[in-house]
Amino acid sequence: MQVNGKSFRTLWPKEPRSNVLRVIDQRQLPHDFVIEDLLLLEDTARAISEMHVRGAGLIGATAAYGMYQALCEGRDLQSAADYLQQTRPTAINLKWAVNRMIEAHADGKDLYDEAMTIADEDADWCRRIGEHGSVLIRDIAATKSKAEPVNILTHCNAGWLAFVDFGSATAPIYKAHNDGINVHVWVDETRPRNQGAQLTMWELMQHGVSCTLITDNAGGHLMQHGQVDLCLVGSDRTTRGGDVGNKIGTYLKALAAKDNDIPFYAALPSSTIDWAISDGIKGIPIEERDGEEVLRIRGLLDGKIVEPLLTQKGAKVANYAFDVTPSRLVSGIITERGICEASEKGISALFSEKKVS
Amino acid sequence: MQVNGKSFRTLWPKEPRSNVLRVIDQRQLPHDFVIEDLLLLEDTARAISEMHVRGAGLIGATAAYGMYQALCEGRDLQSAADYLQQTRPTAINLKWAVNRMIEAHADGKDLYDEAMTIADEDADWCRRIGEHGSVLIRDIAATKSKAEPVNILTHCNAGWLAFVDFGSATAPIYKAHNDGINVHVWVDETRPRNQGAQLTMWELMQHGVSCTLITDNAGGHLMQHGQVDLCLVGSDRTTRGGDVGNKIGTYLKALAAKDNDIPFYAALPSSTIDWAISDGIKGIPIEERDGEEVLRIRGLLDGKIVEPLLTQKGAKVANYAFDVTPSRLVSGIITERGICEASEKGISALFSEKKVS
Repeated sequence: MQVNGKSFRTLWPKEPRSNVLRVIDQRQLPHDFVIEDLLLLEDTARAISEMHVRGAGLIGATAAYGMYQALCEGRDLQSAADYLQQTRPTAINLKWAVNRMIEAHADGKDLYDEAMTIADEDADWCRRIGEHGSVLIRDIAATKSKAEPVNILTHCNAGWLAFVDFGSATAPIYKAHNDGINVHVWVDETRPRNQGAQLTMWELMQHGVSCTLITDNAGGHLMQHGQVDLCLVGSDRTTRGGDVGNKIGTYLKALAAKDNDIPFYAALPSSTIDWAISDGIKGIPIEERDGEEVLRIRGLLDGKIVEPLLTQKGAKVANYAFDVTPSRLVSGIITERGICEASEKGISALFSEKKVS
Repeated sequence: MQVNGKSFRTLWPKEPRSNVLRVIDQRQLPHDFVIEDLLLLEDTARAISEMHVRGAGLIGATAAYGMYQALCEGRDLQSAADYLQQTRPTAINLKWAVNRMIEAHADGKDLYDEAMTIADEDADWCRRIGEHGSVLIRDIAATKSKAEPVNILTHCNAGWLAFVDFGSATAPIYKAHNDGINVHVWVDETRPRNQGAQLTMWELMQHGVSCTLITDNAGGHLMQHGQVDLCLVGSDRTTRGGDVGNKIGTYLKALAAKDNDIPFYAALPSSTIDWAISDGIKGIPIEERDGEEVLRIRGLLDGKIVEPLLTQKGAKVANYAFDVTPSRLVSGIITERGICEASEKGISALFSEKKVS
């Protein structure tokens, strides 16, 4: 996608076959656009755990490159895979990507090429998600006058910044916008880390998509008053039964969508599906992160990024990073192969070659 | 309630019959405890609109004192009432209190005494709410071992800081705690103004009640995992049909409570009931506040209160301050006269003398 008029992906090698990976340090956005060099596997693991990079697809592609770095550093690949996997427990793409790299190595494939293929596939899958998902937006637009926007609510950042390119939840929005459909996005700020306020607002505004920032509390009210036509979210791990693990608070929006008869879709490439789990509430591990993320917030003050304290000193805090939206609340799943029902039947009809483990 | 071991109410006259009202400037909490003198009606109106004071009962008691100030200043009382009412459109206690002051004046009553009576009644009603509501907590405690706390989730600040004393949602909690019941409170931070993080955490910690700060996004996940026994919220305006207008995001918590079979109660004195409205979603006016409240956040940095920017410069923002929880999602209403069903039948059985207008 475009940043100040120049094309970017979220990661790329410093030069062909280099062991140095370049990424956008997303902690600095939207205030600064900083490109960071990750020299060693250790840097890459830290970039994932400290969220310089984040988002389902991007974590996977970054970890795949980390496996190539591990090879360059002469490390044992299985222990490198274990090391990378513990950085973010909920994101299934991470596990999927490092396992694929281990299999590729066992098959005698070139790991640099495999990491590049994973990145290219991620971008291509997101592009296809955009094509399939934009049909939903087009259908809603057909019921409105050209002057009335299709109002879409999204949570967190499932944008191109969360993948290699295009994004999952945003891909249908970008496609519809590029096709001339009048789209407007309600962006949940997404506490505690404010990926909506800091990343989704930034990338939608960079691309010229009309968008409005709201608090995470506001979506239910908007839905009650007919101001949301469609909810579109991403996922960090979706079970084969269609339960959607995503940023904490997603479940609350799905409840409100159901209560107001508003379609609620999750957009995700098949690399986000955990074929081993059916019940997401029991099965998806939910990452607990440092309470400092809730106690403080990152913002811009006099040109500097600061993190003031938001509450009483000594306050106890709990910080769950994800929740699970049961499939009964999900209208459908938008994948690179098309849209399906959020159920084992629906998902397996699109991905019949996947064996349930 | 106690602040650093000394008893306080949220407002009091500088001296008997003084036209100067003293309040706690809640914008400085939890970082500073600042007492402010409101010399004129104009200061009092600004203190309400700029939220030095906020919360259903406190807004009402403050506005009542403002009417006494208007009398001292020789102003026309009806225009003073209109002036005060436009400061916060959702809070019904404001309208209730200024109308009561106008009627008291017409009846030849002393307006200083009437303002004091309104404040005393508010504190007394909250104390009674605590007695009635604590039975719910006691009943849950009876199903647990002494070591297991009763986990209560609350949203925003319906604490003593929102009333003259005791609070509405917090009154049952303080009563149960004082009675030796093991209580633990999950406190929603409550964006955009973070009244949960800044006020509820502060007052619960001052009183020694066990509490944990969470983001507004987290409650659904906690409820899915059996970590919430009871939701207790306040209200800024409740219709005679039992629809509960409260801080934005309350509706989302009520949906999650319903989805997980968790009791969801609203605690409010009868001064918060709007007898003229039955359908809250259509009838309760929802205040839209300045977008700066979403774009920035108040926090403590190097001993100073700062307000950094949270998103991209130039971002569009919408800031709805309240939402309405339909009565079908409310397990019951806790009032000064007891607990009733959230319905016209339930409410009118407790307040049979109120005529529906």
